[in-house]
Amino acid sequence: MKSKAHIIGTRQKRVDARGKTTGATKFVTDIQVDNLLHAAPVYALVPHGRLLSIDSSQVEDDSDFIALFTANDIPGENQVGVIFEDQPLMADKIVRYIGDSVGILVAKSTEAAQRLAKLVQVNVETLEPIFSINESRNASGNFLHESNLACEHQVKRGDPEAAFREAEHIIEATFDTPYQEHYYLEPQGCIAQPSSNGGVYILGSMQCPFYVQKAVSKVLDIPFAKIKVEQAPTGGAFGGKEDIPSEVCTRTALAAMLLDQPVKMIYGRTDDVQLTSKRHPFQMYYKVGLSSAGKLLAADIKLEENAGAYATLSSVVSYRSAMQAMGPYVIPNISVESKSYYTNLPPAGAFRGFGSPQAAFGHERMMDIIATEMKIDPVELRLQNVLKVDTETLTGQRLTASVGAEETLQTAADAAHWSNQSISTDSRYLTGYGVSLIHYGNCLGAAGWFMDGSGAKIKIHRDGSISVAFGLVEMGQGALTVVNQMTAEALGVNSARITVLPTDTDQVPDSGPSVASRNVVMTGNAIHDAARKILPILKEAAAELMQCDLHEINIENDVVHNTRNDESLPFEELTNYVYLSNRPMDVLGWWHVPKLEYDAVKGLGEAYFTYSYATHIAKVQVDTLTGLVRVKKIWAAHDVGRAINPAGLEAQIEGGAAQGIGWALTENFKLKLGKVLTDNLTTYLLPTALDVGEIESILVEDPEPEGPWGAKGIGEPAIIPTAAAIANAVSNALGKPINHIPITPENVMTALNSSKT
Amino acid sequence: MKSKAHIIGTRQKRVDARGKTTGATKFVTDIQVDNLLHAAPVYALVPHGRLLSIDSSQVEDDSDFIALFTANDIPGENQVGVIFEDQPLMADKIVRYIGDSVGILVAKSTEAAQRLAKLVQVNVETLEPIFSINESRNASGNFLHESNLACEHQVKRGDPEAAFREAEHIIEATFDTPYQEHYYLEPQGCIAQPSSNGGVYILGSMQCPFYVQKAVSKVLDIPFAKIKVEQAPTGGAFGGKEDIPSEVCTRTALAAMLLDQPVKMIYGRTDDVQLTSKRHPFQMYYKVGLSSAGKLLAADIKLEENAGAYATLSSVVSYRSAMQAMGPYVIPNISVESKSYYTNLPPAGAFRGFGSPQAAFGHERMMDIIATEMKIDPVELRLQNVLKVDTETLTGQRLTASVGAEETLQTAADAAHWSNQSISTDSRYLTGYGVSLIHYGNCLGAAGWFMDGSGAKIKIHRDGSISVAFGLVEMGQGALTVVNQMTAEALGVNSARITVLPTDTDQVPDSGPSVASRNVVMTGNAIHDAARKILPILKEAAAELMQCDLHEINIENDVVHNTRNDESLPFEELTNYVYLSNRPMDVLGWWHVPKLEYDAVKGLGEAYFTYSYATHIAKVQVDTLTGLVRVKKIWAAHDVGRAINPAGLEAQIEGGAAQGIGWALTENFKLKLGKVLTDNLTTYLLPTALDVGEIESILVEDPEPEGPWGAKGIGEPAIIPTAAAIANAVSNALGKPINHIPITPENVMTALNSSKT
Repeated sequence: MKSKAHIIGTRQKRVDARGKTTGATKFVTDIQVDNLLHAAPVYALVPHGRLLSIDSSQVEDDSDFIALFTANDIPGENQVGVIFEDQPLMADKIVRYIGDSVGILVAKSTEAAQRLAKLVQVNVETLEPIFSINESRNASGNFLHESNLACEHQVKRGDPEAAFREAEHIIEATFDTPYQEHYYLEPQGCIAQPSSNGGVYILGSMQCPFYVQKAVSKVLDIPFAKIKVEQAPTGGAFGGKEDIPSEVCTRTALAAMLLDQPVKMIYGRTDDVQLTSKRHPFQMYYKVGLSSAGKLLAADIKLEENAGAYATLSSVVSYRSAMQAMGPYVIPNISVESKSYYTNLPPAGAFRGFGSPQAAFGHERMMDIIATEMKIDPVELRLQNVLKVDTETLTGQRLTASVGAEETLQTAADAAHWSNQSISTDSRYLTGYGVSLIHYGNCLGAAGWFMDGSGAKIKIHRDGSISVAFGLVEMGQGALTVVNQMTAEALGVNSARITVLPTDTDQVPDSGPSVASRNVVMTGNAIHDAARKILPILKEAAAELMQCDLHEINIENDVVHNTRNDESLPFEELTNYVYLSNRPMDVLGWWHVPKLEYDAVKGLGEAYFTYSYATHIAKVQVDTLTGLVRVKKIWAAHDVGRAINPAGLEAQIEGGAAQGIGWALTENFKLKLGKVLTDNLTTYLLPTALDVGEIESILVEDPEPEGPWGAKGIGEPAIIPTAAAIANAVSNALGKPINHIPITPENVMTALNSSKT
Repeated sequence: MKSKAHIIGTRQKRVDARGKTTGATKFVTDIQVDNLLHAAPVYALVPHGRLLSIDSSQVEDDSDFIALFTANDIPGENQVGVIFEDQPLMADKIVRYIGDSVGILVAKSTEAAQRLAKLVQVNVETLEPIFSINESRNASGNFLHESNLACEHQVKRGDPEAAFREAEHIIEATFDTPYQEHYYLEPQGCIAQPSSNGGVYILGSMQCPFYVQKAVSKVLDIPFAKIKVEQAPTGGAFGGKEDIPSEVCTRTALAAMLLDQPVKMIYGRTDDVQLTSKRHPFQMYYKVGLSSAGKLLAADIKLEENAGAYATLSSVVSYRSAMQAMGPYVIPNISVESKSYYTNLPPAGAFRGFGSPQAAFGHERMMDIIATEMKIDPVELRLQNVLKVDTETLTGQRLTASVGAEETLQTAADAAHWSNQSISTDSRYLTGYGVSLIHYGNCLGAAGWFMDGSGAKIKIHRDGSISVAFGLVEMGQGALTVVNQMTAEALGVNSARITVLPTDTDQVPDSGPSVASRNVVMTGNAIHDAARKILPILKEAAAELMQCDLHEINIENDVVHNTRNDESLPFEELTNYVYLSNRPMDVLGWWHVPKLEYDAVKGLGEAYFTYSYATHIAKVQVDTLTGLVRVKKIWAAHDVGRAINPAGLEAQIEGGAAQGIGWALTENFKLKLGKVLTDNLTTYLLPTALDVGEIESILVEDPEPEGPWGAKGIGEPAIIPTAAAIANAVSNALGKPINHIPITPENVMTALNSSKT
């Protein structure tokens, strides 16, 4: 069902590869501005306390000191909460975590700012801290905010109680997953420059320029129109630059406006890890009822999330984990509760998958536990229950097209020779296989529908070159390349004509955040819309020029073709003619997600407009002597609807799987009384290329009718199944359930030892 | 016939006043960029010669020297001619004037660049130079280009020969007008920075960012899409920054690209005066035939222009002076020839009025000579012949509306008590009155129709603030303020909501040049178009929100009003609702001048789509002892169709009249063998506030149906009648014809002395 395409589906080199490989690309840290000052955050070293005073007397005489600004200097509202208004830009009464900023120190250099910021005395009356979900849930009165429950979402479908009564098998288990640090290569940073019109220009490393614009407007009391936010080339984000840059940029803008001078703030790595959001730790309870044939009948699922000190994106995480809690399976009766609790820890927030990897860990470990208990092959159990066209998701959403779940499962199983798998019984090294199948709701879903629209502006120049501005961003995922391809395809021209501009808030309407695997779907459809508007103008002009009817004009393969007489014209001759005939060639395209029918009280209905599906199969080797788990191979089959750039897609899958491997095995995030201990790469172990093993990407293309050229999102699905597949593989190897991660050597040895007792 | 308006027509302070008066506005020279290098032009000191070699050996060892680039370093075409391809970016074979750049020298500071540029040896074999129109016209073989005739335009209407035979009076005269230097306060300058995508970003002082983009593309062989040109705040232009910045920016961009480093070039004043274009010197022959009643019957007009070394905008000057050669009078039989000749002088180019002030000097001195000879009152003679609705211009264009010529004449005459004027007969001081009536074709006219379209992008933010991007520029004339007002008026909101963005080529379609008094007409209509597109969307949303019909919604005075039940809503509540309902609020407006019917061979038909009209009456006092002429007062009545910002309009009129006073009296541009002698303010005398006298602005509003809110252009009409009015007044005072300017004390004394002999 593929539409005819020339550039879509071809393997393209990244358009930004040259700059990034040669070093020509300038990141915020590389950019110097005349008269630039430098800032660093000031924060208390206690996880919970009442702010008494801030004493800068020890730094004021330093020749590098410029200024210290606190909450008292804020002209607008001291509030940067992205969904709930629970987060001051700078704490003014209560400090809720180590890293809760109380001030911004400005100095003559970054080094001086960071040094002096540590010397500022933040005097705090210590309050009792809360660190765990259980403490938070059970606290009576010691609330971080009005209550300790940051947010909750639920699904109530069918009659689980009755279904459990009829079920032949009822299986229960609990799981937990830890914090994960984004560890983008480039830390948070921005430059803010006052504009001569009383506004401010911000250039920063970020995912969501429009969020920054909104936050700056609110805190600095400046209208949106006087705030220009431009995304600098961004060295990784993974959700960690969704809302956090609103804090970083707003503080920096505040300092710049008060000093009437440009200010740069770059976080040092230690601050970056201590201050910024991470993946929510989850604790999960699953109870599933099945028929004797292995049909899922009922589920009761309770998800609890450690939100840290502020809600940030907890609501999205809670919503998404609830909507996907039982995975891509038919289950007619289900109760899901997903609750986020405040604690005195660094805020948990957006991280690739938004709670999906956690929920996937729950439902996919659960499926394997069921398979083991019921002695059904794990792939077989999944095939029996998998979503297909004309079935309904756990929220009761009937699927009508582009349901590639089964195909990903089959193709991955085939590739991995699942039926032929053999567990080696080598005395030291145990081999195991694990499978994991997930679905992922594309874009923001019903709860975020109101902001689920994005724009793209196409500007065709008289020389036939084309600029494209889009409202989402390149943050390492390859957006520039697919935007280039989609524009070329939509207009029928060569991709060499196209330049994709840096994202800035002046160029396109507020296009929402670059999250939730939105870029291809949103921007692609917006490009389609723009092309739909500009092509008739080009064709009308071509018909004039070539003396034929509009419908006889074809623009394809970079050539304007008159099908009446087979004459043709280079594209740039047409564009020059259009220019000379006084027709503008700038056009704004826009697309928003179709309206979703959703009942927020019951959590039923169209949670998302479509879903991506993926199966990962992991082959692991466990060293029973050291407890070390090695991933030998991952077969990763992804239903992406349609591959725009298979090369980029495979890289996304490999990157996602690698990040999933890190979360599953090596990234052991540790805190002590609210202080992050693993705040650098010697203690927080990111997997290296040597740790990742082989990843085989398998592209399944089941076109989504609403997707551009049939495409669906891939950014997040890439990581979601990995950890569960690995845990299933390790459980398979050990013959012991592994229900929490990371699967460190210590945890493996503990499991092995427990098997010996 | 005024439409109801709230903000249009009210006196508004300039929105950029604060920045410009406090010094907060940063001009190019104020802007520092990291790693910035500095450049200066290298040129030969001979007016005509064959380039033999360029020797930089004397500067290469200087520690400040970075590089010298010449024509050999140009990757694309060595060509920057804006209309004709006659001008290399850097001369490679023939040097045609002192200032014809042969290289660009890059050094560590502007001072060093300018110092070292002068030390580069440019070796030239001298060729015979041509300086005057007569030498150029009569040269046989010593051609600067293929021929010495740069361009020509003509009008051939009726049968002048027959009409002259029937005329009762035939009067002849010749006139000449000199060079005028723009003397913008801020000299030419820009910064060019290589972009990481292989393109270049240029920030410069300029009128025409899209011209710069085109020139850079051609010379550097970079597609338009990779070239971003942004106008920096610009300290005056007056036509002098129409095409010249294309040279300045392209040379600077060349250096920046070759060095892969940002480069700034700011011209020193001496270079600026020597190298850049000026107002064309004209020599004019007029022969006019009249009936005994004083009706104009026939004219034979020959205009000759000194184009200097390159044509630049000569074609526009030649066209416009021909189209307006006999002024706003009915004349059924006419022959006009307007020819521009190359000479080895600095190029003459665009300058406020494009040949109109020169032609106005011709036809308005002629009208006074006729009045004197025929003993008719000068105002009376003009009233007898003036254009009205349903008459035809000299090109045979029938006027259907907005012909305020007569009204400007009447109101100026009334204000000046013309009928009661008395010439003092004080022994030393003679007083004289002079009148001058002109028309000015708005926008580019028939010859430039293909590029006479402009855009404006309105972006409404969710908080109700509004950004406007437009394709023309603010260069001191007050564009930002009227764009603000027109946007506020078009949308029915308060002007405080609106921020007008700096002009850049990424934001809007190629909107042509900011010349020919285009801004109000073009941008105003584009804003209208944008509002026409966005208002229905706002109203549709308002109708949803206020539960009424779309046609019952009124957006006025910053309030959204439901006329059904008289409920209202703040504008920002509506915009927030529109945002939340996923409707984009960015919209591009576009307007182009209606197609003009024009016969280019005969010079007949619709030369322009409409005309502005103006009368200046000057009262002068001539000191017969010193020859000094003082302007006591100018009554300046302008038909502007509709005044958008009367305060700005009056300032434009005052500025134009002041510049006209300088051209008429004090600005005595002198060259010696192609070298400008008057290259600073001690030798080139700009009138100061003390020299200008009183100027009374009188606004006549005869609405133009195609103009936004009825408005027409004012930028150039402001200067056009002034010099002729002053010359007529001095002639009136002396009783002697003054047929060339500047009317220096020497020239006055010569005229006085000639009267005594």
